[in-house]
Amino acid sequence: MTKFMDRDFLLKTETARELYHGIAETLPICDFHCHIPAQQIAENKPFSSITEVWLGGDHYKWRAMRIAGVPEEKITGSASDEEKFMAWAETMPKLIGNPLYHWTHLELQRYFGVEQPLTAENAKEIYDACNEKITALRPQDLIRVSNVKLLCTTDDPVDTLEWHRQLREQNESGATILPAWRPDKALNLTAATFLPWISQLAEASGEEIETFAGLKDALFKRLRFFHENGCRLSDHALDTVPAGPLDEALAAQAFADVLAGKDVSAQAVDAYRFALMTWLSGEYSRLGWTMQLHIGAARNRNPVMFEKLGPDTGFDAIDDASIAQNLTALLGAMMAEAPLPRTLLFTLNDKDNYVVATLAGTLQRSGATALVNQGPAWWFHDQKCGMEKHLRNLSAVTPLSEFVGMTTDSRSLLSYTRHEYFRRILCNMFGTLVEDGEYPDDRAALEMLIKKICFQNAYDLFSEVR
Amino acid sequence: MTKFMDRDFLLKTETARELYHGIAETLPICDFHCHIPAQQIAENKPFSSITEVWLGGDHYKWRAMRIAGVPEEKITGSASDEEKFMAWAETMPKLIGNPLYHWTHLELQRYFGVEQPLTAENAKEIYDACNEKITALRPQDLIRVSNVKLLCTTDDPVDTLEWHRQLREQNESGATILPAWRPDKALNLTAATFLPWISQLAEASGEEIETFAGLKDALFKRLRFFHENGCRLSDHALDTVPAGPLDEALAAQAFADVLAGKDVSAQAVDAYRFALMTWLSGEYSRLGWTMQLHIGAARNRNPVMFEKLGPDTGFDAIDDASIAQNLTALLGAMMAEAPLPRTLLFTLNDKDNYVVATLAGTLQRSGATALVNQGPAWWFHDQKCGMEKHLRNLSAVTPLSEFVGMTTDSRSLLSYTRHEYFRRILCNMFGTLVEDGEYPDDRAALEMLIKKICFQNAYDLFSEVR
Amino acid sequence: MTKFMDRDFLLKTETARELYHGIAETLPICDFHCHIPAQQIAENKPFSSITEVWLGGDHYKWRAMRIAGVPEEKITGSASDEEKFMAWAETMPKLIGNPLYHWTHLELQRYFGVEQPLTAENAKEIYDACNEKITALRPQDLIRVSNVKLLCTTDDPVDTLEWHRQLREQNESGATILPAWRPDKALNLTAATFLPWISQLAEASGEEIETFAGLKDALFKRLRFFHENGCRLSDHALDTVPAGPLDEALAAQAFADVLAGKDVSAQAVDAYRFALMTWLSGEYSRLGWTMQLHIGAARNRNPVMFEKLGPDTGFDAIDDASIAQNLTALLGAMMAEAPLPRTLLFTLNDKDNYVVATLAGTLQRSGATALVNQGPAWWFHDQKCGMEKHLRNLSAVTPLSEFVGMTTDSRSLLSYTRHEYFRRILCNMFGTLVEDGEYPDDRAALEMLIKKICFQNAYDLFSEVR
Repeated sequence: MTKFMDRDFLLKTETARELYHGIAETLPICDFHCHIPAQQIAENKPFSSITEVWLGGDHYKWRAMRIAGVPEEKITGSASDEEKFMAWAETMPKLIGNPLYHWTHLELQRYFGVEQPLTAENAKEIYDACNEKITALRPQDLIRVSNVKLLCTTDDPVDTLEWHRQLREQNESGATILPAWRPDKALNLTAATFLPWISQLAEASGEEIETFAGLKDALFKRLRFFHENGCRLSDHALDTVPAGPLDEALAAQAFADVLAGKDVSAQAVDAYRFALMTWLSGEYSRLGWTMQLHIGAARNRNPVMFEKLGPDTGFDAIDDASIAQNLTALLGAMMAEAPLPRTLLFTLNDKDNYVVATLAGTLQRSGATALVNQGPAWWFHDQKCGMEKHLRNLSAVTPLSEFVGMTTDSRSLLSYTRHEYFRRILCNMFGTLVEDGEYPDDRAALEMLIKKICFQNAYDLFSEVR
Repeated sequence: MTKFMDRDFLLKTETARELYHGIAETLPICDFHCHIPAQQIAENKPFSSITEVWLGGDHYKWRAMRIAGVPEEKITGSASDEEKFMAWAETMPKLIGNPLYHWTHLELQRYFGVEQPLTAENAKEIYDACNEKITALRPQDLIRVSNVKLLCTTDDPVDTLEWHRQLREQNESGATILPAWRPDKALNLTAATFLPWISQLAEASGEEIETFAGLKDALFKRLRFFHENGCRLSDHALDTVPAGPLDEALAAQAFADVLAGKDVSAQAVDAYRFALMTWLSGEYSRLGWTMQLHIGAARNRNPVMFEKLGPDTGFDAIDDASIAQNLTALLGAMMAEAPLPRTLLFTLNDKDNYVVATLAGTLQRSGATALVNQGPAWWFHDQKCGMEKHLRNLSAVTPLSEFVGMTTDSRSLLSYTRHEYFRRILCNMFGTLVEDGEYPDDRAALEMLIKKICFQNAYDLFSEVR
Repeated sequence: MTKFMDRDFLLKTETARELYHGIAETLPICDFHCHIPAQQIAENKPFSSITEVWLGGDHYKWRAMRIAGVPEEKITGSASDEEKFMAWAETMPKLIGNPLYHWTHLELQRYFGVEQPLTAENAKEIYDACNEKITALRPQDLIRVSNVKLLCTTDDPVDTLEWHRQLREQNESGATILPAWRPDKALNLTAATFLPWISQLAEASGEEIETFAGLKDALFKRLRFFHENGCRLSDHALDTVPAGPLDEALAAQAFADVLAGKDVSAQAVDAYRFALMTWLSGEYSRLGWTMQLHIGAARNRNPVMFEKLGPDTGFDAIDDASIAQNLTALLGAMMAEAPLPRTLLFTLNDKDNYVVATLAGTLQRSGATALVNQGPAWWFHDQKCGMEKHLRNLSAVTPLSEFVGMTTDSRSLLSYTRHEYFRRILCNMFGTLVEDGEYPDDRAALEMLIKKICFQNAYDLFSEVR
C-alpha cells in the first residue's frame, strides 16, 4: 500500500517518479488564467485566518458543503471563521475521489507543513496550526514560494489597471503579473448589467457610444490601453456559441434597440454576439494576442440562491447543447475577417473533448505551431480522471507537445498546488506509456515534452512582454 | 491468475477485499426501485422452472439472444422451457465483458450452488440441478435469503394496492414492501392508453375528470391513498424532458382537446407534461416523498416487434437529445411552485452523467443533505464499466457519501445479486484509492461511506414508514 | 519495464500473450473497408520512396505535422521526398500517446525490419534503409505478405470497374479483391459535384436521368453491374442523418428543382436524402448486400485549405448533432420499405457509441445474427483508447462475438499492421478479463470469439462471392 499522499503521490511507476522529481517538479509556473484580483496581490495584505484564504471565495468547497448538508450559515453566512473551518473539516471524509480532497491536503502539506488527513477530530488543532503560519504568508510571498514566473489576472475592459501599474512599481512576488481582457459584459446584450456597463465603457474610453460602430471604437481604445499595459490574452465565457451567419446590420440594430430600451429577439442577440466576437478576433489577431473561448457553462442554475449570493457562488452546471456547427461557423467568420489569432478552446462538457480538439486541428496555418488548440481540462474536469481523459483524448488526435498545460483558474493563492497535481498526472501518464513499451525511454524527448507542456508553451504566449 | 468469479470477484486489492467482506457483504438491502409485481410476492407461488424465473420476463437476456441469432421461437415463443434454457446457455460464451455473464453466474452461485461456468455442454446438467432447487425458492424466501430489508414495487396510480394490503397481513420475506407511484400513463397525453386510463383513474378516485383541474383532483386523491398505503416514492419515465415555460392555460386546453378527441400540437403536449410534472412535484414535496426522474430512454424502436410483443421486451435504446436547458427550466418551475422534493435524477445517456450531477449540485437547500442528486447508473449502464464511470464522475463533483447506491430495477427476484455486484465494485474503487494513497486508510470513515451508500441513504428515504 | 514495442506490445498478461501469439497473430485479414484505389493494386507498380507510400496520401500524418508547426511546403508542397521524411521524423517524438506513433513503428518493424524509434537523429539512416527495401515491395506483394484474404476498395457507382476486371485476370496478392459501392455523390444534392456526376451516371448506365424515378433506374442498373462484379457491400458518408418522414413527392421535386437549376430548401434536401437512402436500403436488402452508414463526420472545416487542397487532406473534424431520432426514423422507414439489409452503423462521435449500439440491438430479425450492429471504432477513435472504449461499450450491451472487427479504412498499403494493433488490443482485453476472473479460462470459447471477431464475421459478409 502506498502511503497517503506522500512524495510519490499519483506516480505509479519508477519512470513516472523520475520524470516528476527529475524534471517537472522544479519547473516554474506560468499561470495564464486565474481569478486572483490584482488588487489583492498589489495590496499584499496578510491573511487573517486559514478560513479567509481557504473558504472566503472558494465556491467549489461551498458547493460540496451544501450537498453534504452543511447549513448556509456556516458556508457563506455569519458563523465564525472557526465554525466554518470545522464544517469544512467535517465534510472532508465524505469527499472520497473528489479533487477537493487532494487539493486540500496538497495545500496543507505544501503551505502549512500539515501532513495528517484533515478530519473533524483533528480540525481544531490544524486550524490553530495553520492560523499561526497564515499571517506570515502574504500574497506576494505565496506567489514567490510557489515558483510562479508569470500570471495573468482576469480584467474587465473598463478596469483602470491601476493595481497592475502599482505592481510594476512594487512587486516582490518574482512573477510578471499581466492583465487579461475579459469583455463578457460587452457580449451579454440582454443582461441587467449591459447598459450600466456601456456607460462605464464610454467613460473609460472617452468615446460616446451611440452605435455598434461607437462600441467598437470604445473597445478599440481599451484594447490598446490593455496592450500597452502588457495584456496579451483575452478570454470569453462563451456559455453558448452564437449562431451565424455574420450579419453586421442585424447586430448593429440589436445594439441600437437595446440602447433604446427595446426588446430584441434571440436571433438578434446571436447576431450581435457573433458579429462582436468576429470583430474582436480580428483585433486580437492584429495585436498578436491569444484568444480563449470558455464554452459550455450553464451558470446560476438556482434562482433562489442567485438572488441571495449573486454569481460565482457554486450554483453553476454544465450545458449540453451541440456546439460543432455554430463554433465552426464562428471560427470560419473570424478566419474570413482576419488571420485567426492564436486560440485556445475550452469545453465544460467532456463529451466535446474530441469535437473541440479535432476542430482545432483543422484550423492551422502553415508554419504556425498549434495556432488553434484545446485548452486544459476545465473546472469540473480539472481533477484526476478529468485530466487523464483530457490528456488521453488530446494526445490521440494531436501532438501533445503543443499543449499549453495547466492553469489554476482559481480565486485562491493556495491553488498553485494544482500545477503540481497536473504535473504528477502528466508524468504518471508518460511513465506508464514508457514502462508499457508504448513510448521509448528517450529522456531527452520526454524532457522536451514535459518542459513544453508544464511551462514553456504557456510562457511563450507572452514572449513579447515577459 | 484470479479464479473465475470466486469469493474475491472484482476485488483487486487487499483493502478492497477487507472492505467488502468486513463491511459491505453483510449489509441489508434496500431495493427502492424494482419491477417485481406485488402480486407475485403476495401470492408467493413456487416457480415451475429456472426458465420461468430467469427467462420469463428478462428482456436483457432476450435481447442478447436475438443479436446472437437465436430464433424468437426460443426466446418468447412456444419452445419448451428446456429448449429456451439451452438457447440461453449457447449464448453465454458469446457474452464476454457483458453484465449478463456476471449476473448469470452470481445467480447460479448464490441461489443454486452452481460454481462452474454455464456452457452448451453442461447446460442440461445445470438445468436439472437448478430445477431441483427452484421449487424450494418461493418469492418471499428469495427476498429473505437475499437480506432485503425494504423494497418498493412500481405501481400505477389506479392500482387498488390490494396485494400490498395482503402483504401487510401475510409476509414472511422479512422486508417492508411498499408501493411506488408511477404515473406515466397520466403524462402520455397522446398515447393510445391515455383515454382508457383516464376512465380507470376516474373510477379509482371517484372523481369525474372533465378538466385539467379535475385530473389533478383525481390524482390528489390517489396520491393520498398511496401515501396511506406507505408510498413515499414516485417515479417518472421522462424519456424526453418537456420544454417550458409553465403554461397552465395551454396545458388545460391540451387536456380538454384530447378528451374531446382533437389533435394537439407537440407544443401543447409539452405544456401539458410540463405543467403536470410541476404540479406533481409540489404534491410530492408536501407529502415528503422522493421524486425519481428517469431521463433519456428511447423506447420501442422496432415497430414490427412492438406490434407482436408490446413494450418492455428488449427493443429499447438510448436517446441523445440535449437535456440541460429543458431540465433546468422544469426544475426551476418546480422550485417556484413549492420547495423541491428530494429528487433523484437518472440518465440513460452517460454523456449526461456530469450534466445531471452538476445540475443536481446547484439545487440544494440550506441544511438539507443531497436534496437533489444523481441516481444510480441505470439500465444499459448498470454494469461494471458503467458503474465505475458513474461512481468516478459523481465522486468528482459531489460528496459521494450521499449517493443512494444500488437498486435492481429488475423484473426478477434473483437480481438481488446485483447489489453484491455493485458493492464489490464500490469496495474495489475505495480499496484502489486507499492503496494508491489517494484516500487515507481510515476504516471508520470508509465504513461510514460504505454503510451510507450501500444501504442507509436509500433506507432513510423511508424513515417515516419503515 | 517492457521493451519498446517488442513482440508482446500491448499484451499485458500471460493469457493475452498466449491468445495473441497462439490464435490471433496468424489469422488472415478481411479488410472490408479501405480507400486503396483498385488501379494501384492492378497496376502493381513499385514505390519510388518511403515518402510516397507513407506521406503521399496520409492525411493523419499531414494533420499532425501541421499542428506541430511544419510548413505546408514540407507536407503537401514541393519539398523533396527526403525533406518531407525528415519533417515527419522531427514530428515523431511529439506524438506521445498518438496512434501515429504506434502505426509508424509497426510499419517500420514489419515491412522494413527497422526496430529503433524514429527520431530526427536517425531519420536519414532509416530513410535510406527503407528506400532500399521499398522497391521490392509492390502493392500485390504487400497484400500477400500481410496475409490479406479479401479486401474491398471504395468505388463510385459510375466506375467502370475495369481495374477490378483486370485484377480478376492478373492478381498475385493472394486476396480476393472486390469493389464496394459508395454513392455519396448521388446523395449530395446541393454539392457542386452533383450535376456533373448525374451526367456521368447517365452515361455509365445508358439511362436518361430526368426525374427521381430515372435516377433510381440508373442506380438500379449500376447496382446490378456492381453486383455482377462481386460487390456485396455499400457505404455511405452520412455526415448528418436526414430528417424524415419519407416524402417521395418532395424528394422527387427537390431532384427536379436541382436539375432545373433552382434552389432547394434544407427540408427538401433532407427529403431527397431520406427517400434515396430508403430506396437504396431496399435494393441492398434484395441483393443481399451489407449497408455501412458512416455517421458524424464534419468535413472540410478549413475553407482556406479546402480551396488549395480539396477534400480528404486532413481538415475534417467530429460533428456533435443528436442522431438518435433521425436515425431511428430512417431505419424505421427502411424497415417499412423492405427487410433491413445487414447493416453496420459507424459513429465518429464516441458519445454515440451506446446510442448506436443499443439502437442496433433493437433492429434484429428472428434467427438473423447481428442483422444490425455497430461497426468498428472509426477514424479519430481508431486508436488504443478509442478501440478499448468501443470494445468495452459494445461488449456491455451486445454479444461481442458478432462484432465484425477491424478494417483499415486506409489510403496506404502499409496499414495492415492496424489489424495487428487491433488484435493485440482485443487479446489484451480478453486476457485481462480472464486473469481478473471475469471470464473463464475457456480456450475453446476464447478461440471462437477471437476467430470470429478478427476475421470470420467480416469474411462471412462475402460468403457468396469469395
